[in-house]
Amino acid sequence: MATENRNPEIRKDAVNNRLVILSPARSRRPSDIKSKSQSKPDSNPTQCPFCAGNEHQCAPEIFRFPEDSTSDWKVRVIENLYPALSRQLQVKSDNEEHRQANGSTGEVSLRGFGFHDVVIESPNHSVHLQDLSPAGIAVVLLAYKKRIEQLCAVESISYIQVFKNHGASAGASMSHSHSQILALPVIPTIASNRLNTMKEHHNQTGKCSLCNINTHKLLINESTHFISISPFASTFAFETWIIPRYHSSHYHQLDEDKAIDLGGILKLTLEKLSLQLNDPPYNLMIHTSPLHIVSSELPYTHWYIQIVPQLSTIGGFEMGTGCYINPVFPEDAAKILREVQLPNKE
Amino acid sequence: MATENRNPEIRKDAVNNRLVILSPARSRRPSDIKSKSQSKPDSNPTQCPFCAGNEHQCAPEIFRFPEDSTSDWKVRVIENLYPALSRQLQVKSDNEEHRQANGSTGEVSLRGFGFHDVVIESPNHSVHLQDLSPAGIAVVLLAYKKRIEQLCAVESISYIQVFKNHGASAGASMSHSHSQILALPVIPTIASNRLNTMKEHHNQTGKCSLCNINTHKLLINESTHFISISPFASTFAFETWIIPRYHSSHYHQLDEDKAIDLGGILKLTLEKLSLQLNDPPYNLMIHTSPLHIVSSELPYTHWYIQIVPQLSTIGGFEMGTGCYINPVFPEDAAKILREVQLPNKE
Repeated sequence: MATENRNPEIRKDAVNNRLVILSPARSRRPSDIKSKSQSKPDSNPTQCPFCAGNEHQCAPEIFRFPEDSTSDWKVRVIENLYPALSRQLQVKSDNEEHRQANGSTGEVSLRGFGFHDVVIESPNHSVHLQDLSPAGIAVVLLAYKKRIEQLCAVESISYIQVFKNHGASAGASMSHSHSQILALPVIPTIASNRLNTMKEHHNQTGKCSLCNINTHKLLINESTHFISISPFASTFAFETWIIPRYHSSHYHQLDEDKAIDLGGILKLTLEKLSLQLNDPPYNLMIHTSPLHIVSSELPYTHWYIQIVPQLSTIGGFEMGTGCYINPVFPEDAAKILREVQLPNKE
Repeated sequence: MATENRNPEIRKDAVNNRLVILSPARSRRPSDIKSKSQSKPDSNPTQCPFCAGNEHQCAPEIFRFPEDSTSDWKVRVIENLYPALSRQLQVKSDNEEHRQANGSTGEVSLRGFGFHDVVIESPNHSVHLQDLSPAGIAVVLLAYKKRIEQLCAVESISYIQVFKNHGASAGASMSHSHSQILALPVIPTIASNRLNTMKEHHNQTGKCSLCNINTHKLLINESTHFISISPFASTFAFETWIIPRYHSSHYHQLDEDKAIDLGGILKLTLEKLSLQLNDPPYNLMIHTSPLHIVSSELPYTHWYIQIVPQLSTIGGFEMGTGCYINPVFPEDAAKILREVQLPNKE
């Protein structure tokens, strides 16, 4: 496939205000880029605690869908056996000190209070998220929604990160399809930077950055309620965003109808990335808004999903500067992904 | 080795203002953590363009040390054959447009002008940075200094990132010991965040964050002019900083005497990390200040070196939030690294 000859470019967008270097000289033709480490295979499914029948090997269940199901559950939300944050460390009263700050060094430490849950996306070990039907994916998406709504009731939780690591080199320690929900007592840097950037854009233009996102040469697909695009300042090769076409600040505003529509475009996106890039490991992140925002912030906060296939290694330049070098221009990635033909697609 | 039982903690410091989750429950005892992927071995040294005798296979040389050497050079600084930024794209006059901004979408793009050079640290394929003597490492450190001074003369360069990727999984595409210098026309996010954080701390306390860094339980080693520490808000397990004890805004203020002293503590640090962690791949970054700072910024900018051994994978949580989960408390890492006994150490 022919793509334009391009000079390196430095870009940033009005969503994350993050610098990226687009530099095609370091790589092959965009259409030749494939994953080296595939996300499969499975070692010993009979030993997997996430499989139906092994529920007793897991940490406690929070809920399942359908709620009254027994062995025929579709999705289970459970506690993480090795939580990064502890639900036992909650401050019990307003008088109790939660935060320690050292004035002379400027250091701050907080107790590691929070919730770290796991969403098992299927009872079947060999079924991955993209193998489910749009309605099947919607069950997973609605499980995220329900768990977020439960966590919203905990006053000291400020932000909830839903994410999925697919494949060992993307950070998955279990091969059975699952995602994770981490509820934090602080707003993480990337979320507060995003809020500030989108606020500034709204102040300058009166518009929401994501309602008015640039789709020129960058659109991949669209459904009734969503679009998928290669973002203008893509940090990674073939990075893809799925954005609601309607303005919505928080992911958990998603209703059942829109969840099925989102399930369809998410399935299509994952299938296209898998076919084009040779089943790469990937990370999926839901970027929502902090829980306790004021109504004046609502016009410029807008949730979206970011999917990053793992195609390269992070080095000292990226780690030192926070600026990523991406060998594929998003205009080229979007064209390639737009044109991927899935087999047996009716 | 016994370490304290610890609850998870969320921390940030007055240097980078970056949130980190310290969470020991996810891992083994800190002293049992070892690298899985080692940084060696070499495939075919006779084919290596960085070896003495193969200089003609490289991109153009910028300079060598000693300057009048022939085949007996110690260090060569050359252009990168696959530069991320192009030295050909410099703006030729003030009237020529360098930056394109799209007002309605808030997107910004700049030409990818910059310099991307390689420092070959030894003529010998099997000699790694830590194998050199303190004076030998000083030659490498002074090559960085000289090249930075040359690049300072280019008006449109704003920031220079020196970094080293050791081992394939840390991003090194060549196994012959080398580092890289990338000169940018913009100040990257992490550098501007650092400057803002250190400014705020200086405004509040009248002190430089790094002159007054917390070393309580965190000190690893000290030399005449430098200390090595495990930073209070370590992003990664066994992350180590080497900090000048004297106040200095820019790395390229380093003189020959201090370069030899720095060579000694850097060698000690790399040898200790290699022995304790089973020769891990690592990234080394020199965090200096933007080139064109005003004199009022000098009291609170202070350069340092960050070394990150690659012991784990980045997942969707870190990518989505910018908040890292570190399984080793820096107090434990510092104790372990302080006590590492190197063999044949006189």
